[in-house]
Amino acid sequence: MNEKDFKDHLKEVNQFRIKKDSTIKEIINQFINTGFNAKRLAKACNIYETMVKDINCVKFFGLAGAMVPVGMQGIIYDFIKDGFIDILVTTGANLTHDIAESLGYQHLQGDIDINKIDDSFLHEEEINRIYDVFLPNSVYEGLEDFISKLKIPDNSMSVSKFLNFLGKQLPENSKSILKIASEKNIPIFCPAFTDSGLALQLGFHNRGLNLNHFKDMLELVDISWEAKTSGVCIIGGGTPKNFIFQSQQFCPNSAKYAIQITMDRPEPGGLSGASLREAMSWGKIHEKAEYSTIISDATIVLPLIYWYLKTVITD
Amino acid sequence: MNEKDFKDHLKEVNQFRIKKDSTIKEIINQFINTGFNAKRLAKACNIYETMVKDINCVKFFGLAGAMVPVGMQGIIYDFIKDGFIDILVTTGANLTHDIAESLGYQHLQGDIDINKIDDSFLHEEEINRIYDVFLPNSVYEGLEDFISKLKIPDNSMSVSKFLNFLGKQLPENSKSILKIASEKNIPIFCPAFTDSGLALQLGFHNRGLNLNHFKDMLELVDISWEAKTSGVCIIGGGTPKNFIFQSQQFCPNSAKYAIQITMDRPEPGGLSGASLREAMSWGKIHEKAEYSTIISDATIVLPLIYWYLKTVITD
Amino acid sequence: MNEKDFKDHLKEVNQFRIKKDSTIKEIINQFINTGFNAKRLAKACNIYETMVKDINCVKFFGLAGAMVPVGMQGIIYDFIKDGFIDILVTTGANLTHDIAESLGYQHLQGDIDINKIDDSFLHEEEINRIYDVFLPNSVYEGLEDFISKLKIPDNSMSVSKFLNFLGKQLPENSKSILKIASEKNIPIFCPAFTDSGLALQLGFHNRGLNLNHFKDMLELVDISWEAKTSGVCIIGGGTPKNFIFQSQQFCPNSAKYAIQITMDRPEPGGLSGASLREAMSWGKIHEKAEYSTIISDATIVLPLIYWYLKTVITD
Amino acid sequence: MNEKDFKDHLKEVNQFRIKKDSTIKEIINQFINTGFNAKRLAKACNIYETMVKDINCVKFFGLAGAMVPVGMQGIIYDFIKDGFIDILVTTGANLTHDIAESLGYQHLQGDIDINKIDDSFLHEEEINRIYDVFLPNSVYEGLEDFISKLKIPDNSMSVSKFLNFLGKQLPENSKSILKIASEKNIPIFCPAFTDSGLALQLGFHNRGLNLNHFKDMLELVDISWEAKTSGVCIIGGGTPKNFIFQSQQFCPNSAKYAIQITMDRPEPGGLSGASLREAMSWGKIHEKAEYSTIISDATIVLPLIYWYLKTVITD
Repeated sequence: MNEKDFKDHLKEVNQFRIKKDSTIKEIINQFINTGFNAKRLAKACNIYETMVKDINCVKFFGLAGAMVPVGMQGIIYDFIKDGFIDILVTTGANLTHDIAESLGYQHLQGDIDINKIDDSFLHEEEINRIYDVFLPNSVYEGLEDFISKLKIPDNSMSVSKFLNFLGKQLPENSKSILKIASEKNIPIFCPAFTDSGLALQLGFHNRGLNLNHFKDMLELVDISWEAKTSGVCIIGGGTPKNFIFQSQQFCPNSAKYAIQITMDRPEPGGLSGASLREAMSWGKIHEKAEYSTIISDATIVLPLIYWYLKTVITD
Repeated sequence: MNEKDFKDHLKEVNQFRIKKDSTIKEIINQFINTGFNAKRLAKACNIYETMVKDINCVKFFGLAGAMVPVGMQGIIYDFIKDGFIDILVTTGANLTHDIAESLGYQHLQGDIDINKIDDSFLHEEEINRIYDVFLPNSVYEGLEDFISKLKIPDNSMSVSKFLNFLGKQLPENSKSILKIASEKNIPIFCPAFTDSGLALQLGFHNRGLNLNHFKDMLELVDISWEAKTSGVCIIGGGTPKNFIFQSQQFCPNSAKYAIQITMDRPEPGGLSGASLREAMSWGKIHEKAEYSTIISDATIVLPLIYWYLKTVITD
Repeated sequence: MNEKDFKDHLKEVNQFRIKKDSTIKEIINQFINTGFNAKRLAKACNIYETMVKDINCVKFFGLAGAMVPVGMQGIIYDFIKDGFIDILVTTGANLTHDIAESLGYQHLQGDIDINKIDDSFLHEEEINRIYDVFLPNSVYEGLEDFISKLKIPDNSMSVSKFLNFLGKQLPENSKSILKIASEKNIPIFCPAFTDSGLALQLGFHNRGLNLNHFKDMLELVDISWEAKTSGVCIIGGGTPKNFIFQSQQFCPNSAKYAIQITMDRPEPGGLSGASLREAMSWGKIHEKAEYSTIISDATIVLPLIYWYLKTVITD
Repeated sequence: MNEKDFKDHLKEVNQFRIKKDSTIKEIINQFINTGFNAKRLAKACNIYETMVKDINCVKFFGLAGAMVPVGMQGIIYDFIKDGFIDILVTTGANLTHDIAESLGYQHLQGDIDINKIDDSFLHEEEINRIYDVFLPNSVYEGLEDFISKLKIPDNSMSVSKFLNFLGKQLPENSKSILKIASEKNIPIFCPAFTDSGLALQLGFHNRGLNLNHFKDMLELVDISWEAKTSGVCIIGGGTPKNFIFQSQQFCPNSAKYAIQITMDRPEPGGLSGASLREAMSWGKIHEKAEYSTIISDATIVLPLIYWYLKTVITD
């Protein structure tokens, strides 16, 4: 960027005000002309809007973290239902919790100072803690009952094929991520599948099971290669982030859009906190990609992004 | 808390959904039954609402960070205008930037990858950087012109009295924090006043100036002691946080409500990241205080809190 | 804890001093009577020392992050060589980089301000970036050459069995983690194996490959169940953390010692940042476990822990 | 940087190993050829070594955070004693705690899970908490006794002059920062002095006191202007960071060396987390400055830096 370009490019920061009847669209439109994370949020909203409006864009969504336990199952469900996700990559934990909620069990919370909770007391009470959300051990019994009765059609199918099968076994009228993905034929990939309570129970009850993780890996590479345009939204990093990006790495059309919501940072060198521009060096996102990383707890900003998309897409 | 109380207290996590015509009030009301920072945000909204509705509550607001440069001047202005702040404690930097905006200068921003900016180039171009927001050096010339012409009535007045005087010198029709505070007789305290560009210019042009920082310190203690009820909202920590809390420490009625928005954490021991419950050990907040810390960039959540308050208070 | 116990328990903070000829042992011994992360580091050193000296203790080591690229291959190698690790759980990325170094390729670095690096330039130059460390694409060609020539004895062996086989194929005299683990029969588990460059190349060259991830999962559960005493050291979280802890969950003897080094925090609810005491509610660590979480970049503290262990163990 | 320069510049990452008899000097020398924060620590050590060896360099040291309560009084004392600090800028809190330790009172700690501490219990017991370090209220009585007896020679002296006077009143043979600084005529600046327990007690007992903060501000500017070479070491950010840097801003010789140890990050825009290269745009550090930011709890790395300096300087 030469000097003149840079200076010509600068605009006034928007010293905005909010009214009682402001809309999320107006607020995001004001944030774009500020800075720090407010601006990054606005930019992410704009990028996601572009991804949804670009009919050629395959929208990859990487979901790590405990988003289902904390109450975001309905948001992810609607992201899929409304066509904002084409490929979901997630963790076994989120799927385990999705099944629990879908079978009618609940995660619990309360107006409790989490520092005052004694975890050895919780252990005696058989209540598992996920920061300030709780899951009674008894849920796992219901889960086991469900899993032990599954008639798995093929012991060496890919994980994503298995998850598609699994979604179909879940009750109607639930807000299940697995269910809606099965119904809409949205593939769910789970590269660290055996790293989950779901897989543990599957493994205990099906000693011959050997779901083929390599098939998933190669299939996602094929999807990435065939996409005319790719867009990526990463929640929290982890294996979903890397699994999506490794499939983009040598693509003819690596990701043109990229959004990342994380509390991690680049300096300690881990992938979850790595900047999106770093992915450019690897060819995982395109050198002309539009991208935005929001440093935030996703529980605050993912609902805002959904709200924004819902407002602008159905306009 | 005994076992039965704890278990009786637990409620289902709310697997909520958002509609196009949802309101901020509805979304915050859904967040309260989730967890992580979404729940903390909702709790902070509820606490602030209570503070505003409690007519005996003196609302202390501690503002650190670069909120004015990044576009939040209008939000702070409206917090004061709408009666959501009774006592403002802030940094000299925010006041310096407030004066700049009030005199008609602007902070700048652009659609620029901040990593591609060469700071030695900026230095040559006389453009100062605050992360992804910019302030040309030329603004300081206008500031100096304004400051050099001030007729300071008393060289040893308190800082807050001086800031009240200063607010009156600023142009009408600006969204100045100093101006609206002067007009509404909302005191502004600034414990590290000489740690600012504003103070540097005042010092250069008024060699006999010795604003009395001890008067401010004692006055804030008096205000805290006289308050029937105190509520505290802290943005970013720093000296505003400690200055408010040290005034609460030995009060008959230490803070009953406390909100904190910060990206800092308790473990490294600094005050900006210290938990609100730690303040309880010092007697800075009451042992029955309602409190919530949101781990977030304030540029995202402070506007949301304002939006929520504006919606529920004027209902 | 009753009042008297708490107060009797308190000791003076150690206002220590360091001399030129201080040893790491002396410094750690001084840190234990301070606070914040210095104390946590000292406590972790003491716990690891106890783990090593307890002959019944099975030492699980979870390694996420980019520790091999950044120069910590030799440290991990020596942890294994000196008997400080009995079970290693890691990521495919670390193994990929371990092979690269073992085959004679190098990661690169330089005295470069990372912000001045243009990632699209790096992409043109075929240099991949991991924060401030670099890996030329050409390394992958050497890697591919090695991988394409492997004669895999069994397409459905477990991942850990495959990694044992793989270690044996690597050159002598390297500081390879895979090599030394094979030699010492230390099992390496890798729950997200297909989420790596190593697996991608294996998959491309061996279309029938279906390494059995469920076997690994069940085997690690067996190891945990059979251990008289378990100790856990977690670097960076990720799948290695969860994979170890899920194997501990229903054990008769869940982990009695636990150490965690991470920059992540509990509040956003992700597993990498979850506190060790949270693991107690799940039964993943014992309710009387000794534990310490160090909030730090592992590149600083893991070498210090090794240095301390080397000093005290061979005394 | 052109392509060739960049590529020629790259070196192998050092896959180092540590021996039992390694020295801190050897370890730091190995860290320099790694990456992430280990490399940043090594670079900071090298920069500080250069600062100490450059006889023209005025070494500014900004100390925020609770370093005295946590046991680092002796380290700071030795930094001053050994000539590694020429100008100290700190917070009132650190000075308050320094006086307490110097008068023979102690901060307390214990082998306690900080999450199990009930802060309302601590409040009843009159024990103040600073994360995992404790200070009984009774200490403030001893402090008040000392402060109430001070015969302050001049009510409108600068804060730094007052602190020099104060140091002289403290007992011999203590490891007091104030004492050693007085003895060696090392000025201590404290821009937010009234934001401290020390100032509160001074204010209560000396109603006419009006220490002149503007004199300090102007004096530090003079010192910066007169320095042939400036070097800056910042612990934790806060007002000490800004107060040092604002004095450097328009200097003919702005800081040539700069080190920063902090857990804060640049993205939310606060000054404590701002990058050192940002300071370059303001002219606060020289465009050819050598600089290093370590993202770490200072309680771990500051003692290591001291240890390194002690080893190499007295060689």
